[in-house]
Amino acid sequence: MVRWSEAESRVRPVDGGAAIAADERQAVLTKPAGALGRLEALGSQLAAIARTVPPPAPQDAAVVVFAGDHGVLVEGVSPWPAEVTAQMVANFLAGGAAINVIAGVVGARVVVVDVGVATPIPGMGPASDGAPEGPVGQFLSANVRPGTGNLAVEAAMTADETSRAIDVGLSVALRLVAEGVDCLVTGDMGIGNTTPSAALIAALLDRPVDEVTGRGTGISDLAWASKVGVIERALARARLNLGAGLSQAKPEAVLAELGGLEIAAIAGLVLGAAIAEIPVILDGVIALAGALAAVAIAPESKGYLVAGHRSTEPGASVAMAHLGLDPLLDLGLRLGEGTGACLALPLVRTAASVLGEMATFDDAGVASGSAT
Amino acid sequence: MVRWSEAESRVRPVDGGAAIAADERQAVLTKPAGALGRLEALGSQLAAIARTVPPPAPQDAAVVVFAGDHGVLVEGVSPWPAEVTAQMVANFLAGGAAINVIAGVVGARVVVVDVGVATPIPGMGPASDGAPEGPVGQFLSANVRPGTGNLAVEAAMTADETSRAIDVGLSVALRLVAEGVDCLVTGDMGIGNTTPSAALIAALLDRPVDEVTGRGTGISDLAWASKVGVIERALARARLNLGAGLSQAKPEAVLAELGGLEIAAIAGLVLGAAIAEIPVILDGVIALAGALAAVAIAPESKGYLVAGHRSTEPGASVAMAHLGLDPLLDLGLRLGEGTGACLALPLVRTAASVLGEMATFDDAGVASGSAT
Repeated sequence: MVRWSEAESRVRPVDGGAAIAADERQAVLTKPAGALGRLEALGSQLAAIARTVPPPAPQDAAVVVFAGDHGVLVEGVSPWPAEVTAQMVANFLAGGAAINVIAGVVGARVVVVDVGVATPIPGMGPASDGAPEGPVGQFLSANVRPGTGNLAVEAAMTADETSRAIDVGLSVALRLVAEGVDCLVTGDMGIGNTTPSAALIAALLDRPVDEVTGRGTGISDLAWASKVGVIERALARARLNLGAGLSQAKPEAVLAELGGLEIAAIAGLVLGAAIAEIPVILDGVIALAGALAAVAIAPESKGYLVAGHRSTEPGASVAMAHLGLDPLLDLGLRLGEGTGACLALPLVRTAASVLGEMATFDDAGVASGSAT
Repeated sequence: MVRWSEAESRVRPVDGGAAIAADERQAVLTKPAGALGRLEALGSQLAAIARTVPPPAPQDAAVVVFAGDHGVLVEGVSPWPAEVTAQMVANFLAGGAAINVIAGVVGARVVVVDVGVATPIPGMGPASDGAPEGPVGQFLSANVRPGTGNLAVEAAMTADETSRAIDVGLSVALRLVAEGVDCLVTGDMGIGNTTPSAALIAALLDRPVDEVTGRGTGISDLAWASKVGVIERALARARLNLGAGLSQAKPEAVLAELGGLEIAAIAGLVLGAAIAEIPVILDGVIALAGALAAVAIAPESKGYLVAGHRSTEPGASVAMAHLGLDPLLDLGLRLGEGTGACLALPLVRTAASVLGEMATFDDAGVASGSAT
């Protein structure tokens, strides 16, 4: 079994030569040069990931929704009670959530992974620790710990818990790929999880807290100021343990200090996609926090990332700028679950399909334009 | 047979009460209020169009690509020869164009309508005038005139040709709806057609030519300045015939002066969608010019419009602002054919489907958030 600690040596750089060959093919397809806009660069990235032109269009995409709870909720960072995490997991399994509807529209499967839900999931037995063997179904119980510690006053996770949470994500990715999945989409569910995400982005990129902290699912000015204060306390505490330069600390140690379990699992999913050499479409700020950790662990994993949707959280834009990502969609979604990323799947399929299916000027007997 | 001249009396306003009921339903679905962003307003618009909540999600969408040529091409407004219009029609029918690939990815049918191609379509017999009877297949030959006149020096079309071109679009819309189509997507093919589109937008909205004129598929600064000059001449000529206030003239007369055949047909398609009470997704600047004409003919048709993609043509933004439209996608496409609009189809399906398929807080046993 592959462990996340092997990821750096197992992730190959994407193939720049294939990207150049794809660019050359874009130029002879029956359209004005550059007329497919952002989809052309995306198609060339998919060629670089697949190491071939044309790249295969994703046929079997999976949205993996990692669910976990957050001890920091006691600080009042969210208007929602922790129980909603478990209730929403049950809603995902019943098919009633937004991600179910969107996955149905775009033709993706939804896999829900309990990596750290704190309260009982309605209608389910007790959580089991570690991902069980066998085919990945609709749900995996891989509960590393029932919610993180309160990052304002203690480490969110131990080093061992962090390691196991990353490995849950990595293992799910590789098992899904072994079952035929050819594109991964990140999803998350965890009441309060914009707080650890903002803390991680501030820490990993050495940015001011108020610049990367947003309003999550909707909080007042006063609650926002309190959230910034909570994250400041967490970072001050982490600096005592890891040294003043958190952006220079080991990323797994920063993850352990600031959490959360589902963010660590997303980091593992990203590493798994990169090891398996398939694209991974990132959702919002939670996914970006996980992706930053993954890229800190294995820098070449950056080439496998596709940004699905511009989160309204300010930390998302900061993280995307750092990762060189420009999101495909900007629809004002602030829901998580993988909804924004999943909506981008038809665009990813299109970007690959045009390279494989469009006629060239010569094939089609179409005259090409001359510059004026 | 319904004629476009009956459209004003046949288009009902969309149902504002259904939109309000949809807004109320959005608020009890298992997500934070407003968390689906732009898709929530779109869902409520679809409810208003369908006059019911939840609105049906489009199951059988058709992209209708109207093809026509432009006499103004002799003025050097495009780097592409007119023959490319016919060659691209053949490419559409062979399945090799970008719109074919995108329609395949999103699950829409492509219907190509020759409403005014000037040169022989490779592999096809002679064009026939007027839409034939029988089921709408992949291709309709309804050639009103083999290309428009040069709008810089003469009327693009006669009043009768304009009327027939609008009726081609209206008739295709109603025939497709009779065959089960429940969402229309506008497409266009016509070398040089950003010139009449900019002219129409300037005329119908009384805006300066240089503010609404873009670079089409790609022209130099010098060629752009020449294009602006061509449009200025066309507008000066039209003002002599119709009076100084072109925005106050009859829209069909403005269409006749400035063309083109495919733009008039798109206006008819929009009117058909509004009469049939289904959504119509607009592509770029050519579609917007047609939609402006349709709304001038039947103002209540505005409620049936969805903007698919932000065209890079400046006239598109001016037209969208006037129509109160905000495009769903902004991917830098500048291809036409219906590509941008077709890529928005999964978003339209999603906006309807969430209203019909998502669980409510009560259904799912999920606690709702309290403001903090």
